[in-house]
Order: sequence, then C-alpha cells, then structure tokens
Amino acid sequence: MNETIKLLQNHRSLRKFEERALDQDTIHILIKSAQQASTSSYVQAYSIIGITDPEKKKAIREISTQAYVEYNGHLFIFVVDYNRHKQLASRSDYEIKFNSTESLLVGIVDAALAAENMAIAAESMGLGIVFLGSIRNDAAKMIEILNLPEGTFPIFGMAVGYPVEEGSFKERLPLEAVYFENEYPEFEEVKESLNDYDETVTQYYKTREENKRNDKWSRQVMKTLSKKERLDVHDVLKNQGFLGQ
Amino acid sequence: MNETIKLLQNHRSLRKFEERALDQDTIHILIKSAQQASTSSYVQAYSIIGITDPEKKKAIREISTQAYVEYNGHLFIFVVDYNRHKQLASRSDYEIKFNSTESLLVGIVDAALAAENMAIAAESMGLGIVFLGSIRNDAAKMIEILNLPEGTFPIFGMAVGYPVEEGSFKERLPLEAVYFENEYPEFEEVKESLNDYDETVTQYYKTREENKRNDKWSRQVMKTLSKKERLDVHDVLKNQGFLGQ
Repeated sequence: MNETIKLLQNHRSLRKFEERALDQDTIHILIKSAQQASTSSYVQAYSIIGITDPEKKKAIREISTQAYVEYNGHLFIFVVDYNRHKQLASRSDYEIKFNSTESLLVGIVDAALAAENMAIAAESMGLGIVFLGSIRNDAAKMIEILNLPEGTFPIFGMAVGYPVEEGSFKERLPLEAVYFENEYPEFEEVKESLNDYDETVTQYYKTREENKRNDKWSRQVMKTLSKKERLDVHDVLKNQGFLGQ
Repeated sequence: MNETIKLLQNHRSLRKFEERALDQDTIHILIKSAQQASTSSYVQAYSIIGITDPEKKKAIREISTQAYVEYNGHLFIFVVDYNRHKQLASRSDYEIKFNSTESLLVGIVDAALAAENMAIAAESMGLGIVFLGSIRNDAAKMIEILNLPEGTFPIFGMAVGYPVEEGSFKERLPLEAVYFENEYPEFEEVKESLNDYDETVTQYYKTREENKRNDKWSRQVMKTLSKKERLDVHDVLKNQGFLGQ
C-alpha cells in the first residue's frame, strides 16, 4: 500500500485546531491542488472563498453552530459558480443556460471533486480538515455574508488547520453493502452485512476513548434522516437562478 | 512539494486504456479508499456499481457515446443512494425523508468526495481515470440497466485502467479568478485574469502534440453551456423519489 493510499484510508475529520493561521503559500498549494481535479467539460463551475474577516467568521459560526468554524487555520467556502460564465456570455453572442437541474449537478460535483483534492493535499501536509455542510443551515444568510450574485450557491465549507487532536477513525460500511456488480441488489442480499456493521459501530462507540455512547449506525442515520432540515435550500437555489427547469 | 501533492497537481484525464482488467485486490483498494472520504453526518448516501457484464458495458457505452466506457480496466458507476436507509427505516419506528433538495445535495457531495478519493488512489497506483458525466445522457436508461430502485440516482461513472497514453495537462483558471477573500468580487476585478487565461488556453491548443485546434476557454465553455442538454434529469430525479420538496 503506497503512502497516498495510506493517507486516504486513514482520513478522519478533525474539529479542533491550533490558533495558528495557514500562510499564503500553503493556501495557494491547497487551491492549486483543488483546481486540478476533474471538471465537467472544462467548465470549472465553482469558486472558493477564504474567510479571514473575524466578523464574517463569527457570523458563519452562528449559522454553522460549530466552534471550529471560528477557530481554525483557514476557513474555505466552496461555491457552485456559473456567474463568471454568465458575465462572459453577456459580453458575447452566446446565450447560456445554467438553470437546469443538470447544470446544478455539474456545479456541485465540480466543487466536491475540487474540495476533496484540497482535503487530501491538506492532510498530506500534516494538516487536519473538516467539511461543513452546516453552512446550509442558512444558505440565504451565507449568500448575504459573501455577497453572492445570481448563478452562485454556497454548497459547503471546509475548515483546515494544525491539529490538536488525532480525531477518531470511523469505520465505513462493509464493502459488500456498498459495492455491487452489474446491478443494484435486493435488500435481503445486504441486510446481514448491515447488521454486522451496526455491531461494529456499536462496539466502536462503546470502547472509544472519548464521548463513549450506546448507539448504532442505522439508528444514528435514521434519526438524522427523520429530521426535516434545510427545507429552504430549494427556494434559495431558485432565487439564485437554479432549478428553473 | 510532497508526492501526494505532486500527484494531485499532475492529474490529467485519460481516455484510452490497455485491454487488461483490474484484479479484485486493486478494485477493493479503490473502493476502500473511496469510502474513507468524508460523509455528511455519517450517512454514506451512495453506492458504487462495477460493470463487468459485456452487454451492460456496451449498453452504457451507447448512452455515453464514448469508446472508453467499453474498453478500460474497470467501469464504476456512482449512485446517490438512500435506498438502504429507506429499507432500514421501513423495518423500524423511524419515518425518514430524503425527498428534499438538501438530501439530494448531500448524496451528490458524498458520492463525489468518494469518487475523487478513488481517482487519486488509482493514479497513485499508476492507473489512469476519466469521469463520465455522460451517463446522464440517458439517466432513465441507466436506471433500467442497473435496476436502480427508488431513492437512488446514477450520478456519474468512472473508467479506470492501465494507461496507453499520457494524457494532456489542462491548465486551470488563474488562482485570482477562482479564489477570493471574504466575499464574491465584481466581474471587473476578475475580467483581466480571465482574458489572460483565454490566451494561455489558446496557446496550449495551438501547440499541443495531438488534436491541435484554434479555441479559447471562454468560447469552449459558452458553447457547452448554450446547449440545452439533459433536461430530463429533473424528471428522472423526481421519479426516483427526489426533489419532492
């Protein structure tokens, strides 16, 4: 197993960082690494915004409700972005469209591929990261804070920093519950491996150093999915010019 | 610059592979690497389907219209997947929802983060990859081929294989056109760097070894975005139980 694969397979999200800012060189390496990820038809339908203004960081922390949004090495916000294409088109003979669901999918995938590259680049330098879907707790407010125009949407954030904790490795679904050959299986075929997985996760929660608890994966995710959260995302996307057809 | 960052920054998509299948160990390393990517609230809202049946490969090639969908080391299809959660919930007291736009976003991001990990793992082993958004040319047909139930959607594919070409490095947007501090800039602030970028890309297309052409980035992407493509994606997603609120 090579070093890169070891790094990938050893990922854990960190939620506590030193109070030490990343320097510009490091930030640029992270962005350059992010950018080289694959992008659909060379469109590069995303932008990245780094938050250095303490007032803005505090405001985003309020949306996200996580302390590590305020205290980290650097806070990146990933934005689905068709605004630059729109601006270019308005100065050309082309009439472009980005209001299809397809265009939104392209922008989200582009942004996520780039972000994962950034995560790996950061970890390869000994930094820690955590993704912040929590900025979507109030996407409209994020748009206001970042002054985001039509054709853009804040899809997630990422806090990067110097680790002060090791983080805990969280076992993923068994391979046979997530990888299939040629077609999607009947639930009966994967049921047992999901039960085994519940056992594994329960053991982990019981025996880990910190935050011991009695829980299993299936209960945990069903609890999450039974909450009706972020139902405004649809309308916010529409306001930004997406999901129009 | 460490080896992992060199690898990330040297990515190029490959579209021609040896006729040599990946072995099971390699496939498992790729999947394990994919799985360890971050996942929103531990939900792991995706599955991966490997296509080995030649008939299915041929059928997917017809959708995708790309020869490398049929000829590669292994063909992976990434699927947004809430079906396992739905099945688990139906056997429990929980009532779960995944028909919000928010849930769809979570599934797409989860799948894309995992896929980018797979891409990097593959490249670290000397393999080449290409993403296949082109499976969405006919998402409904993909659903039929893969027998995908409610709560799932085929978001993209990835062909992986032993390279027979080096691929060409494609310069990304200048950092100052993609990375901003604290808020989104006025277009006038990035206009010049986009012009410079057009120059860079034009030079590249003129001077590269194969497929020389006279084109610039802005024209290329505007041409792409002025096509009305894959407008059925919205309805297919609805049929699969997504985008209901």
